[in-house]
Amino acid sequence: MRTISKDTRLCMSLSARPGNFGTRFQNHLYQAMELDFIYKAFTTTDLPGAVGGIRALGIRGCAISMPFKEACIPMLDGLDPSAAAIGSVNTIVNDDGVLRGFNTDYIAIDRLIDRHALSAGSTLLLRGSGGMGKAVASAFRDRGFANGTIVSRNESAGRVLAESCGWEWQAEPEGLQADLLVNVTPLGMAGGAEADTLAFPESVIQTTTIVFDVVAAPVETPLIRAARRLDIPVITGDAVMVLQGVEQFVLYTGVRPTDAQLQAASKAALR
Amino acid sequence: MRTISKDTRLCMSLSARPGNFGTRFQNHLYQAMELDFIYKAFTTTDLPGAVGGIRALGIRGCAISMPFKEACIPMLDGLDPSAAAIGSVNTIVNDDGVLRGFNTDYIAIDRLIDRHALSAGSTLLLRGSGGMGKAVASAFRDRGFANGTIVSRNESAGRVLAESCGWEWQAEPEGLQADLLVNVTPLGMAGGAEADTLAFPESVIQTTTIVFDVVAAPVETPLIRAARRLDIPVITGDAVMVLQGVEQFVLYTGVRPTDAQLQAASKAALR
Repeated sequence: MRTISKDTRLCMSLSARPGNFGTRFQNHLYQAMELDFIYKAFTTTDLPGAVGGIRALGIRGCAISMPFKEACIPMLDGLDPSAAAIGSVNTIVNDDGVLRGFNTDYIAIDRLIDRHALSAGSTLLLRGSGGMGKAVASAFRDRGFANGTIVSRNESAGRVLAESCGWEWQAEPEGLQADLLVNVTPLGMAGGAEADTLAFPESVIQTTTIVFDVVAAPVETPLIRAARRLDIPVITGDAVMVLQGVEQFVLYTGVRPTDAQLQAASKAALR
Repeated sequence: MRTISKDTRLCMSLSARPGNFGTRFQNHLYQAMELDFIYKAFTTTDLPGAVGGIRALGIRGCAISMPFKEACIPMLDGLDPSAAAIGSVNTIVNDDGVLRGFNTDYIAIDRLIDRHALSAGSTLLLRGSGGMGKAVASAFRDRGFANGTIVSRNESAGRVLAESCGWEWQAEPEGLQADLLVNVTPLGMAGGAEADTLAFPESVIQTTTIVFDVVAAPVETPLIRAARRLDIPVITGDAVMVLQGVEQFVLYTGVRPTDAQLQAASKAALR
């Protein structure tokens, strides 16, 4: 790590259960690119106090995770279109006490649609209707995916999200099929209550051409393992983490890492 | 520097004009003693927001400098006797959201009275009546120095402090004399409006047996240079900075550095 001085700028994250990805990823890039920043994960039970502290202490930026992505919005001074369109913030940027909310998850999904040349004509089954689900669904909607279904046990949230995209809603995925399956629920997430649960039944997976699991811990979720067994191409959650993280990095520092720097930071952070 | 993880604890400072001493000193000790802490200096224009942020973010400790030493008191949950006796806080310790104020300047002065075997029978001229002046005067008073004079252009603050110690008050030092001269004003401080000003006139310095300048930047103030020219023993402000800093370190981490570790950290921080 670089030596910290009074001029070093602090960036941080706020989540109920902090992980190490952001801290490792951002600090690795600060060091590799010789930027006078440090990054540290925090949790809080007092979101207004924490956001007030970001403003009062001149903390440059803050990643926002569950369960604060919507709750923080009234505490900010403005929203970037990436967050306003979704009503969900995953990044706060502090310019001299003026706090602006962004959603780099949305930006990351948009990049992945490009990278994997996903066609807007594909049919889509998207499971989940939380803050991250909104970011993912909105990114597909805004790229012209017209034939989608939101699968969500939470009927009201699921219907609202489906309607905002012009898509259908279903409570459970059984009997459905689509060209593209996307999981944005905690199903399959390490440490969760349903870590061993397949986000889509095998009969649904068999009908698809690509499987995208936004869950990044573990990278090999039950859904990803099932798709690999069936030789179906996959997009894994670590790609979302890295792409959204690099957009946060650019917002905080104003500079963009090279592909080589990005790969090295990802490798260090995902180890 | 050590690698930062989600479990790394943050300590910090709040002052109008942050310096680098605390950041270098504390981080040097964290590293040398393999403690999972980092330290960073901050400033703020919103003290309640900053103190609320310390509580909400679980920041372990915070050094408090001018002009926040008295203003922060209503925002805390309790005061240690070192701060309560003076009405001035230079250190906040956060135990699970409960913020307690300490004054390690007071403790440092007490240590220096021991180290230099200063006799309570000595007469004392103490120039200054601000937050640091109160800490220094109280420490001498509590060690039994009964014959003191507070020299302070601010008559009301000077008289209040003098009375609290059972001492006299004078506006200016001309014509006074004492065994021990102590400067606790910004007179002689680098970057200040009176950086070249002698805190006591040479005629007063000539009458004394020891000169103590709490100003630490520069270490060689005009007062210290004048005393050295007259072969009068001196105590310099860097000793206060180091001693108060190590007491902060102990309050934050619960462990005390060895003398060798302390010397190495002081050398690194004062370079």
